[in-house]
Amino acid sequence: MSVKLTEEQNLIVASMRELMTRENWDDYFKECDNEHKFPERFCKELSELGLHQIVNPVEYGGLEENAMVTFVAAWEEVLRLGGNAACIWFSSTYPVILREGNEKQKKIALELMETGLTKVGNAATEPGAGSDLGAMQTTYTRKDGKVYLNGQKTFCTDATYSDYLIVTALDAETKTKYTNWFVPTNAEGVTIAGLEKLGLKTNSAGEIYLDNVELEEDDMLGAEGAGFDMQKNDFNTERVVSGLYCYGYALCAFEDAAKYANQRVQFGEAIGRQQLIQLKLANMKAKLTNMRNMIYDGAEMVDDGTLDKGYAAMCKYYCVVAAQEVTDDALQILAGVGICGDHRASRAWRDIRASRISGGTDEMMILTLGRSIVKEYRNK
Amino acid sequence: MSVKLTEEQNLIVASMRELMTRENWDDYFKECDNEHKFPERFCKELSELGLHQIVNPVEYGGLEENAMVTFVAAWEEVLRLGGNAACIWFSSTYPVILREGNEKQKKIALELMETGLTKVGNAATEPGAGSDLGAMQTTYTRKDGKVYLNGQKTFCTDATYSDYLIVTALDAETKTKYTNWFVPTNAEGVTIAGLEKLGLKTNSAGEIYLDNVELEEDDMLGAEGAGFDMQKNDFNTERVVSGLYCYGYALCAFEDAAKYANQRVQFGEAIGRQQLIQLKLANMKAKLTNMRNMIYDGAEMVDDGTLDKGYAAMCKYYCVVAAQEVTDDALQILAGVGICGDHRASRAWRDIRASRISGGTDEMMILTLGRSIVKEYRNK
Amino acid sequence: MSVKLTEEQNLIVASMRELMTRENWDDYFKECDNEHKFPERFCKELSELGLHQIVNPVEYGGLEENAMVTFVAAWEEVLRLGGNAACIWFSSTYPVILREGNEKQKKIALELMETGLTKVGNAATEPGAGSDLGAMQTTYTRKDGKVYLNGQKTFCTDATYSDYLIVTALDAETKTKYTNWFVPTNAEGVTIAGLEKLGLKTNSAGEIYLDNVELEEDDMLGAEGAGFDMQKNDFNTERVVSGLYCYGYALCAFEDAAKYANQRVQFGEAIGRQQLIQLKLANMKAKLTNMRNMIYDGAEMVDDGTLDKGYAAMCKYYCVVAAQEVTDDALQILAGVGICGDHRASRAWRDIRASRISGGTDEMMILTLGRSIVKEYRNK
Amino acid sequence: MSVKLTEEQNLIVASMRELMTRENWDDYFKECDNEHKFPERFCKELSELGLHQIVNPVEYGGLEENAMVTFVAAWEEVLRLGGNAACIWFSSTYPVILREGNEKQKKIALELMETGLTKVGNAATEPGAGSDLGAMQTTYTRKDGKVYLNGQKTFCTDATYSDYLIVTALDAETKTKYTNWFVPTNAEGVTIAGLEKLGLKTNSAGEIYLDNVELEEDDMLGAEGAGFDMQKNDFNTERVVSGLYCYGYALCAFEDAAKYANQRVQFGEAIGRQQLIQLKLANMKAKLTNMRNMIYDGAEMVDDGTLDKGYAAMCKYYCVVAAQEVTDDALQILAGVGICGDHRASRAWRDIRASRISGGTDEMMILTLGRSIVKEYRNK
Repeated sequence: MSVKLTEEQNLIVASMRELMTRENWDDYFKECDNEHKFPERFCKELSELGLHQIVNPVEYGGLEENAMVTFVAAWEEVLRLGGNAACIWFSSTYPVILREGNEKQKKIALELMETGLTKVGNAATEPGAGSDLGAMQTTYTRKDGKVYLNGQKTFCTDATYSDYLIVTALDAETKTKYTNWFVPTNAEGVTIAGLEKLGLKTNSAGEIYLDNVELEEDDMLGAEGAGFDMQKNDFNTERVVSGLYCYGYALCAFEDAAKYANQRVQFGEAIGRQQLIQLKLANMKAKLTNMRNMIYDGAEMVDDGTLDKGYAAMCKYYCVVAAQEVTDDALQILAGVGICGDHRASRAWRDIRASRISGGTDEMMILTLGRSIVKEYRNK
Repeated sequence: MSVKLTEEQNLIVASMRELMTRENWDDYFKECDNEHKFPERFCKELSELGLHQIVNPVEYGGLEENAMVTFVAAWEEVLRLGGNAACIWFSSTYPVILREGNEKQKKIALELMETGLTKVGNAATEPGAGSDLGAMQTTYTRKDGKVYLNGQKTFCTDATYSDYLIVTALDAETKTKYTNWFVPTNAEGVTIAGLEKLGLKTNSAGEIYLDNVELEEDDMLGAEGAGFDMQKNDFNTERVVSGLYCYGYALCAFEDAAKYANQRVQFGEAIGRQQLIQLKLANMKAKLTNMRNMIYDGAEMVDDGTLDKGYAAMCKYYCVVAAQEVTDDALQILAGVGICGDHRASRAWRDIRASRISGGTDEMMILTLGRSIVKEYRNK
Repeated sequence: MSVKLTEEQNLIVASMRELMTRENWDDYFKECDNEHKFPERFCKELSELGLHQIVNPVEYGGLEENAMVTFVAAWEEVLRLGGNAACIWFSSTYPVILREGNEKQKKIALELMETGLTKVGNAATEPGAGSDLGAMQTTYTRKDGKVYLNGQKTFCTDATYSDYLIVTALDAETKTKYTNWFVPTNAEGVTIAGLEKLGLKTNSAGEIYLDNVELEEDDMLGAEGAGFDMQKNDFNTERVVSGLYCYGYALCAFEDAAKYANQRVQFGEAIGRQQLIQLKLANMKAKLTNMRNMIYDGAEMVDDGTLDKGYAAMCKYYCVVAAQEVTDDALQILAGVGICGDHRASRAWRDIRASRISGGTDEMMILTLGRSIVKEYRNK
Repeated sequence: MSVKLTEEQNLIVASMRELMTRENWDDYFKECDNEHKFPERFCKELSELGLHQIVNPVEYGGLEENAMVTFVAAWEEVLRLGGNAACIWFSSTYPVILREGNEKQKKIALELMETGLTKVGNAATEPGAGSDLGAMQTTYTRKDGKVYLNGQKTFCTDATYSDYLIVTALDAETKTKYTNWFVPTNAEGVTIAGLEKLGLKTNSAGEIYLDNVELEEDDMLGAEGAGFDMQKNDFNTERVVSGLYCYGYALCAFEDAAKYANQRVQFGEAIGRQQLIQLKLANMKAKLTNMRNMIYDGAEMVDDGTLDKGYAAMCKYYCVVAAQEVTDDALQILAGVGICGDHRASRAWRDIRASRISGGTDEMMILTLGRSIVKEYRNK
């Protein structure tokens, strides 16, 4: 059924709108994108408004009810009005630590959250493994009461400006236990370099080299061997979030294009009167409607604890691909204006393209969803 | 947000399921389709269960609340389990007469409804006009207290087995007033012939010749000159209904294919394990999810009185096209089984194809939606 | 480079055009399609003109040079002008026997060819096997100097009106040798039934039951164990032929639509002036251009002996899918006229749909092509 | 029919291959792209090899026969091996001047050609006009034996590093004659600024301000009033060239992806064995085959003088869109490697995107092609 927001949710949405219209953020985002820079000032503003904290565990300030739906509604407005999504992962990073971490780790997380910035990066992917997590080669070895990490990680979101990393590693001895470690980036043996990227440039993609990094036992995050299971639900939620920001970017591009179609005159009339433009707008609108429905429903499932991996995979797959098509159409309507001058629609287009690989490829999503369907109909 | 049905709605849905599983309806539908025959027995059964009457005006037995959503939920189950949609138009035909007709007409409508069959056809489209209603050439002329209809209509749904027609005609004198007439099909001067069709064969597509058909003034349906306006809202609702039955057909084909993918073994394993099959199932599922959301939302808008023509056009456009793609994928999974033996998925595929033209072409929907978007963003 | 026909080829094309415009064939094809009937009269006419024999072995009247290109050019014209393609398989069936058969078999083939009809059916596919030929279960057993066939075949093109069948079977003893047998359909133990079909109704799809059918050793076609290899090249050629007739149907539908777009007036002007119609025509034209290039090149490869399975698979895959899209667009332009009255574009649309499964599914083509590409780039 | 090159053409192709494999050009192209810099060194090398001059008028060193086909074959190899296409316009710019210019202008052109660089920019497009050339507002006025240009141009390819511009302007007095002028960029009143771009960054997109630029009568290029007609054929040829370089980029990306699919191991086997990867490769191959056929045929038409605007529009439309899809698939196969590290496939993807607008939008191509089809079938 249609999305109906509560009064409280509408107030939060209004506060986002106020922030977005208070100044012209676009030049700042353009600069961050050009320079591969995290939009710190923007992230802090959103932190002030409490956006990042909505989905915290309740005891750390998260909403008691409809947290994810509220988060979606707030970000939808931020993105519609041209906001950059780099700092959306703030809300995926800290809650894990608050939920799974020990007291030392939680204390650190809370302090880092105070900065208003994403200061923790996730280091799971490896160059030789990619989606094939079982091929992971980073290990941890115990020796003399200490723990030593060795290996290489890649495509680690936000790694280059983080103070800590969550590193997933395999125990060197039995090669059976995948365990997470909470590692300070200034530890000896940690080297981090950024990769040049086609899109999502305001998030860094870190290459991480771990050369005999010495840790204590209490740097372990969560239980030993819980490396993948611990975040399984989080990964599903993150797929909805990937769908969300791509949807938001596409919505912004759509509105830019729809306005432009009314302003731009060719052959004596606004181009919005041409059938080929109307066709694009019609397709864009249908896709945006679908994305929106899928994301709000997914958010409701997160809030209800019923989100499964099939739905999450569908959400990322459909929304990211549809968002790519919508921004592509927007660029085509904006034409010269869209491909010159670093228009935000062109940045969105690059960011969404990268998102069809980052966070799980289209193909992984298709197979995850496909298998869940086959299973559902197995004995029917 | 996700669809949530009331207990009453669930009971209605369950009664539909009971009807559909009581017997194997498929041979009957196959026969009706082959012989261009309306599925009378099935229509009567649904009438008994009250499905057709759900959306009646309240004073004639319609539901007071959520009528359209209930109607959608009931038909979704009927269609999912292989039901034929020919009689879905029962619910579009009679309510107009009950709402707009005079006492004489309402009495006739109520009697016809008792038969449990669709006994009234709609005759608006003309051979030379199509979507261009303004090119209509059927006229009515007054002479000596009588009214005379002359002209030709085409593609008139259900006309060949109807007792009455709703004929839209232009006043011959001023050529400004489009007016509806309630015409008995056995009146002198009325000739009706059926057209052979690619799909939707269980509904007839009538060619109607009106040769000086003599009517009384009180055969006028609604006010003079209200020919198009009277049904404007109905047309929007009908577009949601078109989306609904195409969605339902596609859902049925999807479930057939998903089951078959588990049963059919090739190269030593169920074909459901092949990536190309999973890809199809994934795409089908995403589209079905979108259609469902769009239709339930549209139904909610009908119930709330907020359905506008942009949304209605989007609903028909997206759902019919997506349903076509889904049934096409289903046929490809069913392969030989799908294209031989008159499989219901192949009938669905033909029916949906016809629906991309019948009831307003894809192109009319695109332009209606496109223009509504351009207008919405005109001064933003 | 562009297609350039010789004078001789142009004469053949002109004779086809003469046949096609001599009478209105469409009613006849409509009738054959409705009644699942092979278009005998048409097949005989083409036989008279020598079309079927172009690709015969040279010693049996085939052209010495450019046979396949000539065949393509002739059929292109036949199909463009509305010809039915059922009898296109005449030219795949007999040449195999003339090439591989013994004297007895060749004699029979030559007599059957005299009828001008396709009187031999191919029986390779089995219900439990489909594309997975290795799962074949029809066997032949030797006993007392005789050979006995047992098993079941399905989807056998032209089987119901054939005098002979080419049956592929596995030797019952060692289960290693796939061998072809040339079987009279009136032999004891042979039962053939036709399947109802969505498309390609003018070719039959036979279900064949082989119950201890007694044969002689000299009913073997080709060498023992040569069951698949013998026709490997033929199968590649047949895929180009599948592409060819689907292209031809699409070309005919395109021309029907392009003419109609000029004639049909809506809102005061020919619909061909609308951008949405021009978009369709533009896409159709590009696809037809591509299909044509691909097929003529494939025909040249057949003539040169360089056709490989990757190209053949691409040819069927691309052309059949593109032809489906083109006829779909044609139907949409023809609108009511296209989906009513059994328009030839609607028959083409059903025939092409069936061709995405018949003769090797889209998926088999994709994987055959895909694997050939991977192999080509293996050590580059 | 299939492309068959002469021995001479093969030698030219071989010389291109030699240049491309002599050194690793990619870092240089990456740098040029990053810094919005024309690849001067590369352009000069190609000039040395005579590539740019192939399509010159014969009296200035162009080939007598098959010039365009040879040009296509040479560039195909350059691009397949990773060449940057920025300097492909060398061959569109100078020949116009050599053909249409007076002695003074031809002398300048010949001197500029000696530099091996594209030193002449084309200034036709205006901010308020775009594809609507009739809305042009740049004018020329005669006064005291001089001519004065006033106006603004935009998206002018290669303008920022050119010594001369070809400026199309309307006569201020009668507003009926569009005339071309050959303008030195260092003339008083000429200001040129570059635009930031999403793609095609190695060509500049100049914004040009013309403020009372004083010219002589003999700075007129071609006849007065011949502004558009003079280059009509050139524009058609340029559309084939746009198709060509996008095809070449896509071919390069395809080969990168096909090789990677063999090397990249996941879940224990090369990803090239996965059906989803094979599907992409199959689609890519079919599209590349189509593009190649279309472009070589178009080149043959240029050489024969039979290229019409319908075909030229189709060539740009189909090839640019298909090239976009192919590079998109390549990126998806290359995954992390494709979207990080400024991979040439990602640059190709951006360049092709820009080409769907630059040089005539997809929509202009569609309508040009669509109208030519409607016209062709007008009285058939």
